[in-house]
Amino acid sequence: MTSDMNAIQLDEVGAPLVVRRIPVPQPGPGEVLVKMAASPINPSDLAFMMGGYGFAQGLPVTPGNEGSGLVVAVGSGLMAKRLRGKRVACFARKGIAGAWADYMVTRASLCVPVSSDTTFEQAATSLINPLTAQAFMQIVRRDRPAAFVNTAAASSLGRMLVRLSGREATPLINVVRNESQVSLLRSMGAEHVLDSTTPGFEEQLASLTRQLGATLILDAVGGPLLGQLLRAAPHGTQILSYGRLSDEPCVIEPGELILQRKRIVGFFLSDWMEQRTIFQVLADIRRVQRSLSTDMQTHIRRRVPLEDVNDALDEYRRSMTDGKLLLVPSGAD
Amino acid sequence: MTSDMNAIQLDEVGAPLVVRRIPVPQPGPGEVLVKMAASPINPSDLAFMMGGYGFAQGLPVTPGNEGSGLVVAVGSGLMAKRLRGKRVACFARKGIAGAWADYMVTRASLCVPVSSDTTFEQAATSLINPLTAQAFMQIVRRDRPAAFVNTAAASSLGRMLVRLSGREATPLINVVRNESQVSLLRSMGAEHVLDSTTPGFEEQLASLTRQLGATLILDAVGGPLLGQLLRAAPHGTQILSYGRLSDEPCVIEPGELILQRKRIVGFFLSDWMEQRTIFQVLADIRRVQRSLSTDMQTHIRRRVPLEDVNDALDEYRRSMTDGKLLLVPSGAD
Repeated sequence: MTSDMNAIQLDEVGAPLVVRRIPVPQPGPGEVLVKMAASPINPSDLAFMMGGYGFAQGLPVTPGNEGSGLVVAVGSGLMAKRLRGKRVACFARKGIAGAWADYMVTRASLCVPVSSDTTFEQAATSLINPLTAQAFMQIVRRDRPAAFVNTAAASSLGRMLVRLSGREATPLINVVRNESQVSLLRSMGAEHVLDSTTPGFEEQLASLTRQLGATLILDAVGGPLLGQLLRAAPHGTQILSYGRLSDEPCVIEPGELILQRKRIVGFFLSDWMEQRTIFQVLADIRRVQRSLSTDMQTHIRRRVPLEDVNDALDEYRRSMTDGKLLLVPSGAD
Repeated sequence: MTSDMNAIQLDEVGAPLVVRRIPVPQPGPGEVLVKMAASPINPSDLAFMMGGYGFAQGLPVTPGNEGSGLVVAVGSGLMAKRLRGKRVACFARKGIAGAWADYMVTRASLCVPVSSDTTFEQAATSLINPLTAQAFMQIVRRDRPAAFVNTAAASSLGRMLVRLSGREATPLINVVRNESQVSLLRSMGAEHVLDSTTPGFEEQLASLTRQLGATLILDAVGGPLLGQLLRAAPHGTQILSYGRLSDEPCVIEPGELILQRKRIVGFFLSDWMEQRTIFQVLADIRRVQRSLSTDMQTHIRRRVPLEDVNDALDEYRRSMTDGKLLLVPSGAD
């Protein structure tokens, strides 16, 4: 193992990323060093690069919130030691990140060993989206809305929800933003699909949510759409805001909250997981791993060398629904 | 009793109010007819006139959400019959209103008999603000924030909260919008008072809420202030939105909700009361009535004949913190 590695780095918010030679980090107590195999570009990475999670160790910083790879060195602690030599899916540390590099140090507790029939490619996207989709279905079962809404519904996560909700009795209303996304979801068997860019969208949504009793809305977009969702939603609706793909201002009418008993609540995966017991989390992860090639599958658009990250980000921002872009270090399989 | 009466009427949203002769309404089953003595102008009346509660019986409509008077006729039903001849404080029916008139029909269950040592003037403002203030203190005791924030803090309701919170261990941060309101609250003994119009307000609020651990914010204003509150609040804060005194757009940043585990939840008094048992509500009302001349006192600015309602509304909108304006029918004491 060499002592230097290639890592993508962000020098300041809004600046293009650069690839630099920097020292391979060393794992501390309870940490492991992962030789990265692949790491996706997720909406949460865009938020990280905008400074949304803060930069716990300052700038420059290496982005990348999840990925897969091989544990090649470990720090002290039983959990870390048991991961030595294991193939893992791994979260980066919150506010520190680091997956877009040849090597990443992360906490052993953020790594999940993957079975031999799971490829590194599958493992790279096996945490954030699948666990979020599963969390949403758990919230649906807990809160028992008569129906629910998801926005950015043609995303990888949105497609997982289409498959998962197809097995349940609770109808899902999918909100997308162009005609080809409508066709895509219909071809997957989705019954309720609305295009937010068509005239009369808000009235259609108001009518359908009332008809079906959709009092839970999962929103990945924010911006003007969140204001529309709040207006169109039935009395008593809870909006779970889990993303802000829109850069436009989000204007809301407090009267909707007050007189219609509505609420807007933030959802963040790591907060959700912290509220669950370790046994629940282990069961969540096992359930996800069993369905990585079925309900929880992610379409991979293409593999991208670290050097091409800026082009890949442009491509991803232009179209988030054509599958995931996977960043792959040059030495990886 | 004559068969006609004077009533203030709203013909359409935004139009000036008119006083008209209309028939005295007749109580149906479970209802009573109250000869009105006095009725305040509250922020909730402004929201009603903007159409915020809907108009359950169409337009024209008589505004006025609470008041006091004498029960002069009753419909069928034990509860209504027991109120005959009683002096009462009363809520109007939701979406129907009607207190700004010589007579109002309302449900017997929305009337509270008042003791002989309570004046009609005190009784007229004895429900909405005192019960809201009490509900907020109950929420503080239930959710146990280390401190809490209230906006429009120089209002009648705001002053009740200053007095009530002074008896508790949980510090209250008062947000007002001019220097004279700062002085007013300081003269009442308020320790933490911030003026939202001063430079550096948001930084002061962020610093003070973090220092005191103020994770509950009661907001009566909406508009740009709500966006500032959301940004300045500590991780995990719940904002209870109970008013939208500001007409300006309210822009929020969904990232604050997602990454900081914040939430914005509507508060509406009648929803709150519906969640409480009848015994709790009776205890709430008794507690309020005992402190109408102390903690729950309302400063009355002046009494206004029904004919002068448009001037009174202008005056109220210009300055809501100089005490309540009470609308008084010409035949009332």
